[in-house]
Amino acid sequence: MTGAVLSALRAQESSSGVTDTARLLVSCADRPGIVAGVSRFLVERGANIVQSDQYSTNPESGSFFLRVVFHLPGVSARLDELSEQFAVEVAQRFGSDFEFHDAARPKRVAIMVSRYDHCLLDLLWRTSRGELPMEIGAVVSNWGDLRDEVTRFGVPYHEIPVTRATKATSESAQLDVLGGGRYDLVILARYMQILSDDFLRRVGCPVINIHHSFLPAFAGAGPYERAKERGVKLIGATAHYATADLDEGPIIEQDVTRVSHRATTRDLVRAGADVERSVLQRAVRWHCEDRVLLHGNTTVVF
Amino acid sequence: MTGAVLSALRAQESSSGVTDTARLLVSCADRPGIVAGVSRFLVERGANIVQSDQYSTNPESGSFFLRVVFHLPGVSARLDELSEQFAVEVAQRFGSDFEFHDAARPKRVAIMVSRYDHCLLDLLWRTSRGELPMEIGAVVSNWGDLRDEVTRFGVPYHEIPVTRATKATSESAQLDVLGGGRYDLVILARYMQILSDDFLRRVGCPVINIHHSFLPAFAGAGPYERAKERGVKLIGATAHYATADLDEGPIIEQDVTRVSHRATTRDLVRAGADVERSVLQRAVRWHCEDRVLLHGNTTVVF
Amino acid sequence: MTGAVLSALRAQESSSGVTDTARLLVSCADRPGIVAGVSRFLVERGANIVQSDQYSTNPESGSFFLRVVFHLPGVSARLDELSEQFAVEVAQRFGSDFEFHDAARPKRVAIMVSRYDHCLLDLLWRTSRGELPMEIGAVVSNWGDLRDEVTRFGVPYHEIPVTRATKATSESAQLDVLGGGRYDLVILARYMQILSDDFLRRVGCPVINIHHSFLPAFAGAGPYERAKERGVKLIGATAHYATADLDEGPIIEQDVTRVSHRATTRDLVRAGADVERSVLQRAVRWHCEDRVLLHGNTTVVF
Amino acid sequence: MTGAVLSALRAQESSSGVTDTARLLVSCADRPGIVAGVSRFLVERGANIVQSDQYSTNPESGSFFLRVVFHLPGVSARLDELSEQFAVEVAQRFGSDFEFHDAARPKRVAIMVSRYDHCLLDLLWRTSRGELPMEIGAVVSNWGDLRDEVTRFGVPYHEIPVTRATKATSESAQLDVLGGGRYDLVILARYMQILSDDFLRRVGCPVINIHHSFLPAFAGAGPYERAKERGVKLIGATAHYATADLDEGPIIEQDVTRVSHRATTRDLVRAGADVERSVLQRAVRWHCEDRVLLHGNTTVVF
Repeated sequence: MTGAVLSALRAQESSSGVTDTARLLVSCADRPGIVAGVSRFLVERGANIVQSDQYSTNPESGSFFLRVVFHLPGVSARLDELSEQFAVEVAQRFGSDFEFHDAARPKRVAIMVSRYDHCLLDLLWRTSRGELPMEIGAVVSNWGDLRDEVTRFGVPYHEIPVTRATKATSESAQLDVLGGGRYDLVILARYMQILSDDFLRRVGCPVINIHHSFLPAFAGAGPYERAKERGVKLIGATAHYATADLDEGPIIEQDVTRVSHRATTRDLVRAGADVERSVLQRAVRWHCEDRVLLHGNTTVVF
Repeated sequence: MTGAVLSALRAQESSSGVTDTARLLVSCADRPGIVAGVSRFLVERGANIVQSDQYSTNPESGSFFLRVVFHLPGVSARLDELSEQFAVEVAQRFGSDFEFHDAARPKRVAIMVSRYDHCLLDLLWRTSRGELPMEIGAVVSNWGDLRDEVTRFGVPYHEIPVTRATKATSESAQLDVLGGGRYDLVILARYMQILSDDFLRRVGCPVINIHHSFLPAFAGAGPYERAKERGVKLIGATAHYATADLDEGPIIEQDVTRVSHRATTRDLVRAGADVERSVLQRAVRWHCEDRVLLHGNTTVVF
Repeated sequence: MTGAVLSALRAQESSSGVTDTARLLVSCADRPGIVAGVSRFLVERGANIVQSDQYSTNPESGSFFLRVVFHLPGVSARLDELSEQFAVEVAQRFGSDFEFHDAARPKRVAIMVSRYDHCLLDLLWRTSRGELPMEIGAVVSNWGDLRDEVTRFGVPYHEIPVTRATKATSESAQLDVLGGGRYDLVILARYMQILSDDFLRRVGCPVINIHHSFLPAFAGAGPYERAKERGVKLIGATAHYATADLDEGPIIEQDVTRVSHRATTRDLVRAGADVERSVLQRAVRWHCEDRVLLHGNTTVVF
Repeated sequence: MTGAVLSALRAQESSSGVTDTARLLVSCADRPGIVAGVSRFLVERGANIVQSDQYSTNPESGSFFLRVVFHLPGVSARLDELSEQFAVEVAQRFGSDFEFHDAARPKRVAIMVSRYDHCLLDLLWRTSRGELPMEIGAVVSNWGDLRDEVTRFGVPYHEIPVTRATKATSESAQLDVLGGGRYDLVILARYMQILSDDFLRRVGCPVINIHHSFLPAFAGAGPYERAKERGVKLIGATAHYATADLDEGPIIEQDVTRVSHRATTRDLVRAGADVERSVLQRAVRWHCEDRVLLHGNTTVVF
């Protein structure tokens, strides 16, 4: 591709059709007429529906999920007004949950990390070159190792040590940085501490975690050593929303990479790191593009 | 999975929510209000929209594609009536092309094949066990080799030899079997003869072809030998709609499989056969589920 | 590829350089000079080493694995003689286990199956067209459903019902068919009964099993239902040697296929069936080509 | 994995069994006794063969390729001596080409790049954390854009502009930096200028190039735009040795990633960038581990 084409694409990117564009997410019990109701609401306000995805778990008595991307001049300033009107005119009638999102506003994101840098650096690098629709406002770590890497990107680095004794205090300190509605998303980019239910409740935004995965799974310590002992041929990773049970939340994305008997445990660790960073950045991208809806303990990814 | 669960699934399959269900495909220049117009049309007739997918090439002046699956008691008997009404009330207003399809009616399919049986047998086998929503009414081959395999499935086998001299005559004989609106789809399951533009025009239904693919491509004869000489690491296949330029039509699905330097040309051929049958059956499934819309020389696959 | 080329390849296949060819598998504690010792043994007898793969778990005190394919006129008649000489001249000195295999002799294989036909039919079909270096001598099932499919391929079908009460008697009946050194390999092509340790000991040959796999794993009943509830994005399969703990033996091959939230449980089951048959046939091929060596609870696949 | 395990692995890495270890690559026309000859040569000198891979294109009159990794105290200081002896005692007898490589010595690498940073940064990052067995001694670019990114890693950045008029002069300036046996490998990490045959001859070491790949291929300008117009479902990349015909050299590694009709051209470019950097780092790793042997216009990758 020529530099000219690239510049053109970068230009297209900077204003990539997201100004004057918003996204509406709707979920409720399936009811006749909901799609018509939603689209009428938007069209009556002069919106042009750019993209619409719908998923219904079954025709009779299932759950209903809708993602609509629409173009409407000046929509950024009208989201509150639209929300109030939608609540009255549509949501009450269909008993639906809904969210309006301004496509022009990058998500405000904070990252928690321990000592592995592969996921963190990939997110910093992609964000810095405009590949991910988000702004990284803070990195919180229980170690100091990655301070220089992070500050180089102009992102504040908060070192908050965690020990069994200080866990409660540490989580308060973390919440001082991450809580209070400052962020739309917290990413656990290989953060090796268990977060308490209380923390997850109080942080006040979704939390995405990345976790190695194998077929079969190897719970507990030394998973790569045990995968090596079992002779697995695939090393995988799973990105999911963090829940009380840290590694059991709704899955957003998964992928695997092949390994052979020649791979050392160290090779497995490196292969795992590559698939982890790749899976995490896809899950984060989809979340920041408002493509992921929760459905019980699973997800709908539009 | 227990046999009980399997039986349950098979039962669910036989009547898998497709009775009283229809699919509507719409494509046109993007215009405000089209989604609302379509959904209002359906809802006013008591339809419940089960699934809706939409794609718009760009917010300003692009093309618009919509697939709606809806549930409406007795819809099978009302498709002509719905089409007439839709033409007047919606299609004319938005200048859109559209098709209604009865989800309960399997597609009527014919298969053309030469001597390779891998794609043909996979389609026959999957259809015989209810895995593909289609009925295979005829197999046409320029060879007799596969007659027994085909007739064993209760499918008529038409051997129509083709030579350069007899090509025109042969195509007429083929059209006697395949033409006249008898079929909704013709599948080229490794049919090694070039079909004339005239044949493609007169057959009167879409034609899906499967073709080996490599990175890079090797046009012309002996592609596997040349892939071996170049040391390719991936062997692929492409399923596409056949056009005048046989291997250049809109792509429906593609996939690849890995090979190493140890693979002989024969291994490459076998690997290619496996990926061909896998890619073809996916493309055929999606077409028979009315998931594929044409967009110039590309496809929208919902 | 032209029919000519195919015929050529088929011809090459029938006598595909395997006549006068044998394979030697060696495993032992790593010791200096073992490769030189083995290759000298073969070269002194006029063998030409066609292929040689070696794996050593670590340079110091590890395990050593070697697979040598060699060409030697009349080797088929000399395997016993070679074994006796190798035992004295090489194996005793290095304390190694070893096996000589005649590459021209297809493996004698029996298949156990319950009611799912996808893996069984794929193995029958590939074997019938010379794609797998094996002969299927018997199919044993605890159900009668698949009798016609099997006998059509000229393979005897043994229906041996299994109930909790009759399990011991049934296994004896199964061993009457499968035991006594009649077979080189038994394949569990979705055989849904647990086999006793006693059966595995007495059957007297390796047993390969195919098993669905997910990230994470879902042990116990209804795995596809639970995978659906968790929203997994990958459906996989694992082929492994059966051990006392049926689903925990050394892994030979694994693979996965992608699914989305739109996939019904039935779609997951079908996707799983496709990856199961694909993984099983690769594992069976590699075993029948003497490419798989056991290393504790893992495998070395050359 | 615990930090302890990681530290252990990192320790294992720093001295990862590569000290006192060398690699021998041999290629020649296949001849009986070559494996025995090579292994006897090594064993007689007290070497312990750690790993041995062999590939023979066919048993009769084919080409033969061998990679042997062996452990021999003090081997780093004896490579010249071993080479001279091997030439006389083995290579002459079998007419073979051969190379000895010290596994403890990282490859000396230079990178050429234009303006795309994704491949370059991934190589700099992996090298800086000891993931690739190489040292990057210089980055040469026809633009200045990436100077800061490169110098931050302590690597000299040479900006050498290239215009049609100055091409010959520019190549001389590039050869002043890259030639003279300073480097074992030159990597074209998205270097967008055609290199002359003369340059490739005079640079005096292998050159690895990364190139986007599609099924089918789209030669010439705007490949992503044309892939979009054709509706390709797979975006790929090929890493190969550069030859006079820049994009036609022996292939080392390839991979693909899936895209849908929803992907914009910009999405295709980003997906292509991700697969390019992943494929290039694998190809570079294998080359630096002396795993890649040339075979005509293809490669043997052990």
